[in-house]
Amino acid sequence: MSEDISLFDAMSTQRAIRNFKPDPVPQEALNKILEAASKAPSGTNRQMWHFVIVQDAEKRAKLSDIYRRAGRNALPNLQWLQDANPRILRSATHLIEHMDDAPVLLLACIEHGGETNLTTGSSIYPAVQNILLAARGLGLGSVLTTFHKQYEDEVREIFGIPDNVETAALLPIGYPADGVRYGPTRRKPIEEVTHWDVWGGRK
Amino acid sequence: MSEDISLFDAMSTQRAIRNFKPDPVPQEALNKILEAASKAPSGTNRQMWHFVIVQDAEKRAKLSDIYRRAGRNALPNLQWLQDANPRILRSATHLIEHMDDAPVLLLACIEHGGETNLTTGSSIYPAVQNILLAARGLGLGSVLTTFHKQYEDEVREIFGIPDNVETAALLPIGYPADGVRYGPTRRKPIEEVTHWDVWGGRK
Repeated sequence: MSEDISLFDAMSTQRAIRNFKPDPVPQEALNKILEAASKAPSGTNRQMWHFVIVQDAEKRAKLSDIYRRAGRNALPNLQWLQDANPRILRSATHLIEHMDDAPVLLLACIEHGGETNLTTGSSIYPAVQNILLAARGLGLGSVLTTFHKQYEDEVREIFGIPDNVETAALLPIGYPADGVRYGPTRRKPIEEVTHWDVWGGRK
Repeated sequence: MSEDISLFDAMSTQRAIRNFKPDPVPQEALNKILEAASKAPSGTNRQMWHFVIVQDAEKRAKLSDIYRRAGRNALPNLQWLQDANPRILRSATHLIEHMDDAPVLLLACIEHGGETNLTTGSSIYPAVQNILLAARGLGLGSVLTTFHKQYEDEVREIFGIPDNVETAALLPIGYPADGVRYGPTRRKPIEEVTHWDVWGGRK
């Protein structure tokens, strides 16, 4: 495991990996990923997060089936990618059909007092980003997905997730398939998305 | 700048910093922080994020005033911290009164098609976590705050933020005040928040 990767190397080469080898993920690596998740910030440090680690083949198949149905529903809205970024469309389509190729599926969940909104995410997605970065650092791949939310109740029933807990992301984790590479990734230049002192303010 | 910090060191020592020196943050460091933010994932890689960097003293004072009002509103609900974690309460109270001690205030925003919900956060808080980690890696401090959301419309008016954009977090950024240290941080053991194959499933 290449645990000594530098922070900035990890951030700049982390990318969505959607094709996996079937090789199992060592327990030690899962522990490091979970430790990394737990180091993230959360509102008032309350750590209302829960991580469901799914390795059982039957449960992975059920989750994969939900993701397939949800992803197929979403695909018509993703056809604009055919021109914009055909690589992502191919890769996303592959994952929709083959989520359980990954030996580990991780449900990142957030416990809440009632309703959730945008800022509820501030107490779970930083942990999810640490999971993605830790996977990168350990030579594993992952990707943040949310299609399964279309069938949130089904997911909750399969895993016995309580009413006051909501799933925030479904992440497959595994070793990248042969030929699948980490970044660099393509992003908008920071000048396009940065506003100095006022909206539209340029340097 | 200690840019060679390892990923796992950065994740395990990143912590909320709420006391700052007035020293300015070099432009090069801000650029590295923004680059790091832009490497985060977002839904279909659409990168609908915007980052407002506030260095102007008058605008920082206005934002600080909003944060002070909002934070004072919130304080009665935080008194349970007096027993649970008095250090956080002291530190949070300091930030409520002195947000603009920090030479840089960053508003992380997300552009959306209409309403936002929990999963909208999956396209902005991973970038926020990269900002926190990059700050740590550069010897700077920051903290993810959301109190200002009580006065979202005021914030939007001050900075001219459009209707289809919502602020997700307000982050002060600066060099940590003397005596303020990075982690290790206290967190629940991962065994308490991990469920193996089913809710409540233990190893």
